[in-house]
Amino acid sequence: MKITKVGLFGKFNDSSVADAIARVQAILKDKNLSVLLGNTTSTKIEGARIDDYDQPLQEAIDLAIVVGGDGTMLSVARELSDHGVSAIGVNLGRLGFLTDIALSDLDSSMSSILEGDYTIEHRTMLQCQVTQNGTEICSGISLNDMVISKGNTGRLIEFEIWVNGQFVSQPRSDGLILSTPTGSTAYALSAGGPIIYPNLPVISISPICPHTLSNRPIILDENDEVEITALKVQESPANLAFDGVITAQLKGDETIAIKRAAKKLKMIRIKGFNYFETLHSKLGWNS
Amino acid sequence: MKITKVGLFGKFNDSSVADAIARVQAILKDKNLSVLLGNTTSTKIEGARIDDYDQPLQEAIDLAIVVGGDGTMLSVARELSDHGVSAIGVNLGRLGFLTDIALSDLDSSMSSILEGDYTIEHRTMLQCQVTQNGTEICSGISLNDMVISKGNTGRLIEFEIWVNGQFVSQPRSDGLILSTPTGSTAYALSAGGPIIYPNLPVISISPICPHTLSNRPIILDENDEVEITALKVQESPANLAFDGVITAQLKGDETIAIKRAAKKLKMIRIKGFNYFETLHSKLGWNS
Amino acid sequence: MKITKVGLFGKFNDSSVADAIARVQAILKDKNLSVLLGNTTSTKIEGARIDDYDQPLQEAIDLAIVVGGDGTMLSVARELSDHGVSAIGVNLGRLGFLTDIALSDLDSSMSSILEGDYTIEHRTMLQCQVTQNGTEICSGISLNDMVISKGNTGRLIEFEIWVNGQFVSQPRSDGLILSTPTGSTAYALSAGGPIIYPNLPVISISPICPHTLSNRPIILDENDEVEITALKVQESPANLAFDGVITAQLKGDETIAIKRAAKKLKMIRIKGFNYFETLHSKLGWNS
Amino acid sequence: MKITKVGLFGKFNDSSVADAIARVQAILKDKNLSVLLGNTTSTKIEGARIDDYDQPLQEAIDLAIVVGGDGTMLSVARELSDHGVSAIGVNLGRLGFLTDIALSDLDSSMSSILEGDYTIEHRTMLQCQVTQNGTEICSGISLNDMVISKGNTGRLIEFEIWVNGQFVSQPRSDGLILSTPTGSTAYALSAGGPIIYPNLPVISISPICPHTLSNRPIILDENDEVEITALKVQESPANLAFDGVITAQLKGDETIAIKRAAKKLKMIRIKGFNYFETLHSKLGWNS
Repeated sequence: MKITKVGLFGKFNDSSVADAIARVQAILKDKNLSVLLGNTTSTKIEGARIDDYDQPLQEAIDLAIVVGGDGTMLSVARELSDHGVSAIGVNLGRLGFLTDIALSDLDSSMSSILEGDYTIEHRTMLQCQVTQNGTEICSGISLNDMVISKGNTGRLIEFEIWVNGQFVSQPRSDGLILSTPTGSTAYALSAGGPIIYPNLPVISISPICPHTLSNRPIILDENDEVEITALKVQESPANLAFDGVITAQLKGDETIAIKRAAKKLKMIRIKGFNYFETLHSKLGWNS
Repeated sequence: MKITKVGLFGKFNDSSVADAIARVQAILKDKNLSVLLGNTTSTKIEGARIDDYDQPLQEAIDLAIVVGGDGTMLSVARELSDHGVSAIGVNLGRLGFLTDIALSDLDSSMSSILEGDYTIEHRTMLQCQVTQNGTEICSGISLNDMVISKGNTGRLIEFEIWVNGQFVSQPRSDGLILSTPTGSTAYALSAGGPIIYPNLPVISISPICPHTLSNRPIILDENDEVEITALKVQESPANLAFDGVITAQLKGDETIAIKRAAKKLKMIRIKGFNYFETLHSKLGWNS
Repeated sequence: MKITKVGLFGKFNDSSVADAIARVQAILKDKNLSVLLGNTTSTKIEGARIDDYDQPLQEAIDLAIVVGGDGTMLSVARELSDHGVSAIGVNLGRLGFLTDIALSDLDSSMSSILEGDYTIEHRTMLQCQVTQNGTEICSGISLNDMVISKGNTGRLIEFEIWVNGQFVSQPRSDGLILSTPTGSTAYALSAGGPIIYPNLPVISISPICPHTLSNRPIILDENDEVEITALKVQESPANLAFDGVITAQLKGDETIAIKRAAKKLKMIRIKGFNYFETLHSKLGWNS
Repeated sequence: MKITKVGLFGKFNDSSVADAIARVQAILKDKNLSVLLGNTTSTKIEGARIDDYDQPLQEAIDLAIVVGGDGTMLSVARELSDHGVSAIGVNLGRLGFLTDIALSDLDSSMSSILEGDYTIEHRTMLQCQVTQNGTEICSGISLNDMVISKGNTGRLIEFEIWVNGQFVSQPRSDGLILSTPTGSTAYALSAGGPIIYPNLPVISISPICPHTLSNRPIILDENDEVEITALKVQESPANLAFDGVITAQLKGDETIAIKRAAKKLKMIRIKGFNYFETLHSKLGWNS
C-alpha cells in the first residue's frame, strides 16, 4: 500500500483538539503527505477538506488518521465503512483501545508506516436493517456494538432471537448487545461478556441484566445472520443504538436484521504492537 | 393479633381476577370475617370499599389479603406502608416470592392464621426523598427496590454515592439499584447481586453494568442513610423508579436521599413456610 | 462418506449400559452394518472388538457410535482424536450436549445417516504438551477443556500466560480453564465464560475465581499457540486435567504449551438438529 | 478502655519484619506501654513473650498490635478469638483491609488511641465443628472464611446445605465459601459475592463455580446455624480450610456445623477512618 494522501479526522467540531490536529497536520506535511481534513473536524484548522473533492473517499485518501479518543474513531469508522480505507488512531494523552498511538510517537510511527513496517488488523463491523411490514425504516452500522435497550420504563423487554432462521431464545432483559470483537471491551464487557481478540471472525450477543441467570453471552460466527424482535415494548418504545448513538425507537412490530458489514475496517498496527498491553493498561491489570 | 376485619386487594382494575377475588371473598365471609375491598380492586366485585370508611387504615383492617402476583403485592405494600398492617399474598396459579399461598390452600391457611398459627416476617422498605436546591421535588417508597437508570441515551451515568456523610464511590454505570432483602431476588439479582434472606436488617447498592468491573454490589446496614447524585445526565434525564414504576426524571442537580421507611411490612407466614423452597421453585434449582 | 463399518462404544466397563448397547447392536446389524465393539465397552456384550483388528482405526470403522452421557463421548473422542473418525452420541434418557440422539430415535436417525441426510460439525480439540527443562514430561488431548487448578492448598496460583510469544497477563486465581467451543457449556460456563457456538475456530482462556475482577475470560484464535507457567506452586503442586481427568501435577518449573489438535472431531448431525434447542433444555431456558 | 499493656505480633517467624517490629516496640515503650511479644513473632526481637505469663490473654494485654499484612492479622485474630481482645493492624508499606495503619502513622495513631479517640468495629468470626457419627473430628475458627473445596479431582462436589434445620439446596460446585463480612472482600468476592460492610450481623454462603448458574451467593443472619455435608467425595477427599489454611480432609460422611463464634474481634479504628477509602485503594476504584 502506497500512502501519499491522508485524511485527518478530529473530534466532531471540538475546538479543544485544534492544537493537536495542527501538530499532526505539520508532522504529515513534513513527510510530504497531502492532507485532507475530515468535514466535521474542528473548523479552527485551515486546509483542504474532504468535501472539497468529489472523488470517492477511497481514491481521495489512502489512510485515515483519527485524533482523539475511541469515540472519535468509532464515528469515523462508521463514516468510512463503505470505503475500505485503512486507519490509525492517535490519542491525546490517554491510551485508547482504538487510538493507541501517542501524539508524541506519531512522527516515528508515521515513518514506520511509510516504510511499510506495519501489519493490518481487519475489524468486523455490524450492519443493521430495521423493517416494519417489509419496509425498511432504519439502518445503521457499528464498529463496537448495536444495542437494543429499554426506554423510559421499569419493565423488561422480551426478545425473540433467530440465527440463520433457527430460533435461539426468548430472553427477558433490559436489553441486548450485539458486539463485534472490537466492542467486546466496551459495553459488552460491563454486561458480563468475554474479551474477544479483535480480529476474530465472530460476533457476540449479550443480554443486559437477564431475568434468567443462565442467559449468558453467546459467541456466533460473524457470517451468521441474526434477526431480533423486541416484544411488549408498546407502552414505552425500546431504543436502538449504533456505537452508543440512539438512532431509532422500536415499537415491537419491527424486525431487526443484523449481519456483518461487507467491508472491514483496516486498523494499521506498528510492528511490536501488543493488544494485551492495551488490556493491561485499560483494565488495570498492572496494579 | 386478633383478626376480624380484612382488606381484600386485587390487581389494579384487572377484571380477569374478579372470579378469584370473589372466591376469596366467599372463603373469608365463611369464616365470619368482615371484608373491605381495596379501592383499586376490580370494580366487578361488589362489597364495601376501604374508601367508604374514614378511619385510618390500620383501624379499618387487621390484615391485608393480596390476590395476584408479586407486582400486586408490591403496589399494595407501598399503599399500606404508613400503617404497619400485616399482609398475606395469594397467588393465582404461579408461586410468587410475595404471594406464596395458592388459592386452593387459602381456606386452610386462613384457619391456621385465625388460630394464631403463624409467624411474622418484618420486611424493610425504602423511603426516598429527592431534593433540588433544598426543596423536595419528589418522594416515594419501595418494598423491592429504588432504581436510578439512564433514560433515552447510550451514555453511562456517573454517580456520586455517600453513606452517612462518608464518600463511597463515583461509579459509572447504566444505573444503580438500591434494594431491600425482599428485592434481592428481583432486579438486583439480574444485576449480579446476592440473594438476601428477607428479614435481614440490610440494604444493598448494585451498579447496573458498571464500567469498572470491581464496582461490585455492596451490602449496607438498613439504618445507613444514603445520598446519591446522578452526574452528567443533562442531555438525557435519568429515570427514578420505585418498584419498577418510574416516578421522576433527574437532571443532575438533585440530591437523592434514601433511608429505610419508618415502618416495616409484616408478612404473615404459615408455620412450615420455607423461604428456600420458594427459591428452588423460582430460580429453577430443582432441575 | 460410505458407512459400512461402525464402532460401538459404551461407558468404560459399566455393565448397566449393557442392555442399551445390545439394543444398539441389534439396530445396527439390522441395517447390515458390521459392528466392532470399543475395547473398554462393557464386557457383557459379545462381539468382535476393535482390538481384534490390527488396521488403523480409521480403516476399521467409518463411524463411531457412542452410547451414554457426554462424559463417555469425551473419553471416546480423545481415544479417536488421531484418526479423524466421525461420531454420533446416543443418550440413555437424558439429553447431552454431545449425546443428542435418544435411543428411541436411533433407528430412524441411522436411516437418515445411511441415506447421507446429515451435516458434519467440525469440533476443535486441544493438544497440550508439558515440558520441564526442554524435556516432555506429559501430554494430552481434550475435547472440552484443559484445566490447571490448585491442589490441596488454600493459596492462589500465579500464572504467566503467553500467546504466540506475546506476554498476555499474570493473573492470580484458583486456576485457568482453556476451553474449546465444545467445552464452553461445561466448566468454562461455571467460571463465567460465554456460550460459544460449537464449530467456531476459537478457544477461550477463563480464570477460576480471579483475584483481579477485570481478569475476564478471553477468546483467542484456535490457531494461537498458548504457553502457560504456573508460579508459586512448590508447596502444593497444581493439577493438570484433560476433560476433567487429572493427568499431571505441576511444580512450577514446567512450560505448558497448548495448541489445537491437528485433527478435528467430526460430529454428525441429523438434518434439523438445532444446537439452541439443546441449550434450552440443558440450561433451563424453557421455564 | 484503659490501655497499659499491649501485645505485639509479627509475621510467623519471619525475620524480615524484625526491623519493623523493633521500631514499633520502641514507639510503644516511648509511650510508657508495657509490651509483650507474641510467641510466634520473629525470634530476632528481644523482650518478654506472652508465653512467659500464665495469666489469661485478656488480662495479660489490653490491645493487640499486629504488624504485617492481612494474613498476619487473620492468624492473630484466630489465636485471640476466645479472649475478646481489641486489635489494630499496622501495614509495612501496602495498605491492607485489616492492617490499615501505616508504620509511619503509628506514633500519632497510638496517641489518638491512648486518648480514647477511636471507635470499635465488632467483627463476626465463624466457628466450625466437624463431626463424624456424632464424634467431633475437627474444629476451627475463621475471621475471613471457611471453605470446603474439591481436592485433587476434576469432579464437582455435591453439597447439602441446611440452615436452622431447614433444607436450603443441594448445589454442585467446586466448593462452598462461608464468609463473614470481613471475608467478603477476600475469596468470596472472587467467587462472585458482594462487598459486605464489615460490622453487619450477617454471613454469606457462596458457591465456587456452581454448575447451576442461578446458585448465587446467599446472605444469612449471623445467628443462623448452618449444616453442610459434602457428598460424593469418597474418591478424592474435599479440603476444609479456615482463612485459607487447610485443616481437614472430608470423606463425605461428616457433618460440618458452622455458627458464629461467641466473641467478636474488636477492631480499633482511629476517628476519620473510612472503610470506603480502603475499598478504593484495594479494588482500584480510583483509576
